[in-house]
Amino acid sequence: MASSLNIGVIGAGSAVFSLGLVRDLCLTDGLHGSRVVLMDTDQERLDRVHLLATRYVEELDVPFEFEKTLDRDQALDGADVVINTALVGGHDHMEAQRDLAEKHGYYRGFTLSTFLQLGLMLEIVRDMERLCPDAWLIESANPVFEGCTLMTRQSDIKVLGLCHGHYGYRRIARELGLDVEKVTFEAPGFNHCIWMTKFEHEGRDAYPLIDEWIETKAEEFWRTHKPGYGDNQMSRAAMHQYRLFGLMPIGDTPRIGGWWYHVDLDTKKHWYGHLGGFDSEIGWAQYLKNLDERVAKIECAAHDTDSRVTEAFPPQKSGEQIVPIIDGLFNDNEGHFQVNIPNNGVLDGVPDDVVVEVPGVVNKSGIKGYVTQQLPRNLMLQVMQPRLWRAECTLDAFLTGDRRLLLTLLLDDHRTRSLDQAKGFLAAALSMPGNERLLELFAR
Amino acid sequence: MASSLNIGVIGAGSAVFSLGLVRDLCLTDGLHGSRVVLMDTDQERLDRVHLLATRYVEELDVPFEFEKTLDRDQALDGADVVINTALVGGHDHMEAQRDLAEKHGYYRGFTLSTFLQLGLMLEIVRDMERLCPDAWLIESANPVFEGCTLMTRQSDIKVLGLCHGHYGYRRIARELGLDVEKVTFEAPGFNHCIWMTKFEHEGRDAYPLIDEWIETKAEEFWRTHKPGYGDNQMSRAAMHQYRLFGLMPIGDTPRIGGWWYHVDLDTKKHWYGHLGGFDSEIGWAQYLKNLDERVAKIECAAHDTDSRVTEAFPPQKSGEQIVPIIDGLFNDNEGHFQVNIPNNGVLDGVPDDVVVEVPGVVNKSGIKGYVTQQLPRNLMLQVMQPRLWRAECTLDAFLTGDRRLLLTLLLDDHRTRSLDQAKGFLAAALSMPGNERLLELFAR
Repeated sequence: MASSLNIGVIGAGSAVFSLGLVRDLCLTDGLHGSRVVLMDTDQERLDRVHLLATRYVEELDVPFEFEKTLDRDQALDGADVVINTALVGGHDHMEAQRDLAEKHGYYRGFTLSTFLQLGLMLEIVRDMERLCPDAWLIESANPVFEGCTLMTRQSDIKVLGLCHGHYGYRRIARELGLDVEKVTFEAPGFNHCIWMTKFEHEGRDAYPLIDEWIETKAEEFWRTHKPGYGDNQMSRAAMHQYRLFGLMPIGDTPRIGGWWYHVDLDTKKHWYGHLGGFDSEIGWAQYLKNLDERVAKIECAAHDTDSRVTEAFPPQKSGEQIVPIIDGLFNDNEGHFQVNIPNNGVLDGVPDDVVVEVPGVVNKSGIKGYVTQQLPRNLMLQVMQPRLWRAECTLDAFLTGDRRLLLTLLLDDHRTRSLDQAKGFLAAALSMPGNERLLELFAR
Repeated sequence: MASSLNIGVIGAGSAVFSLGLVRDLCLTDGLHGSRVVLMDTDQERLDRVHLLATRYVEELDVPFEFEKTLDRDQALDGADVVINTALVGGHDHMEAQRDLAEKHGYYRGFTLSTFLQLGLMLEIVRDMERLCPDAWLIESANPVFEGCTLMTRQSDIKVLGLCHGHYGYRRIARELGLDVEKVTFEAPGFNHCIWMTKFEHEGRDAYPLIDEWIETKAEEFWRTHKPGYGDNQMSRAAMHQYRLFGLMPIGDTPRIGGWWYHVDLDTKKHWYGHLGGFDSEIGWAQYLKNLDERVAKIECAAHDTDSRVTEAFPPQKSGEQIVPIIDGLFNDNEGHFQVNIPNNGVLDGVPDDVVVEVPGVVNKSGIKGYVTQQLPRNLMLQVMQPRLWRAECTLDAFLTGDRRLLLTLLLDDHRTRSLDQAKGFLAAALSMPGNERLLELFAR
């Protein structure tokens, strides 16, 4: 089957994201002929991405139409699929909030961007109800967990949350010397909080190989390996979580973990290696720098009319799930993916209306989640329930504007040392530039 | 109606508790003729309480038979009612654990006695299944919340948890100058975590009087009033919880509250007055001293054969609910009480098999809980859900012996500053004298 779809991309100014999308589309025959409306609030970035996309399809001579707009309605109007990858305020606003929080004693910061993001997400599904009520929304921007739970509770729009953290199982397989193609896995949970219930190599349980690695190789690995900022999967913290909770944390899960891995840079270095992991001042700075460099490289290629974009970025699949899933949903090219969808009984002990991250089969009839093994009760208690509690407080705070719930979340944070600290930071964060809508929301 | 019952008292060596029970029994005509078996593991204390009780009924010439035994089976055998007020290891063991925890950086300590208590409670219901399967168990010892939830989940024995914290509403009424007899209230929740949903004087909402008191009198009160250790109901902490959660915390609830009231003695003094509240080093020392003095006075009276016990302790009702409830259950002398029973749909958002503290009507057909108003959603999220989570972790830890859950509870404690601190204390606490059974339980 083949479909010519209308695809709207919100936050399309992200060059890295959009380039990946364009490449995957070009390599998916069944979607040729589609029209993609790129939308962003930043004209300059939008122009560059549009130029890049247009040149890319011209060079490959594949039939795609790329439009650009600053007007969200135009991207949604008549869409079959909407992809949201927007970050309100961008990284600059995140960093400004982080700096403010550091001044109030929160090492590595605390961000209220979650609430700005939820606001945008709810606007998008409301607009979709009006402009494309039958379209799928693919939510790629964080917080996927809270955001998708909010949207699916508040709207009948079909929402699918996507992330790539689950590929962490491949990092484990590689380290163990396994052929990744022969490895199967399951890692259900909530987005950024997923736990490997199944890890098989050629149909045989490969968990004992992890135990053996920990026993015989881990110490040497931690002493000699200099992991990049994103390489947290084989860290001391990951293995400690495995021991403490009984299952391997996957992807962004080991990176986040418990507060005790993150009290200061030295502690982070102990648990995550020489950079202190993704979220340390060193790791995060490298991430931002790397992101800038990748964007610069893409933009450079887009503007360099002397050479071909497809030479700088050859048409290879990105490995992201978005386009294959669209191909599954609209062309019945069935596949199994890691999806974020309302639980509806898939995970025991999780209410139906909470969005879970689980394997799912995707085809023309939709998305059906499943697990072959449930999460153990100790892990539900130790990790999943507290994580769900934070999500519910967040969503209630957002929906009611009840500042007391915000304060409760802050007081629950282990870095908070006094009531005054929490109240002081909260007042300051709500008053800072870029959070005007939150000050209004939490005026109560 | 009148019934001659067999009443077994576990932990009867508590002179204060037993004297109250004896007085209430003597003043309840419908229970005359009953046989009370006092059981304790401490022969000396048991002898004194037995002597006291025997003299008391002799002086009043009421028909009660008091027996004493060191053998629990004897107290349970054929009982109609079992009352459990035992504290495994007594206050000495609690204090020893507290001292140990202080050495590990836990100001005012952390006790594993909960697990010793749960062990005893489960033994008692198991023994009751064998020796008095139709009897009621009245659970007066802590933890009432976790203990009653455990017992009602594990056994068909009829369990009722009792506490007197809910009388805190009277302290509020008195401070507001209201006639306590004309005040009605409701304060549901979990034991030691109850919230006043209804507060009426002569049928009119009296909450505005609290608001007015806070507005016009609180500062003066806090400046001039020197509360006793147990007088936490009108404290700054109580009023702050009211503001933060929206309902007045009652009884032991304001005393416990959030971690931020308890970081050090100065902070405690700010929130609870000059002694720092019930649980500060000053308040708790006064409580223990006061307890010792009351016990000494009772024991003195018991041995002083020159004067009458009923002169030192005139027959007045204690105000405790135990005997009136027995009178209700067996003699159909119906009444409304504050009871701890399985939720079974009374409180929204709480599973059926969790024991809640709610008003209940007690008569020959049993105990029926009710509320006229539900707890608000913000309070469920801010307080009740985290409290329930701790209870569930505690119960799972107890039932499975899974030490990881214990560690999780400790890591959740705001006083814990590092993983090593939590692990170090846990190892030390499990190895200390008096916790041998716990070391065995958590050997995994």
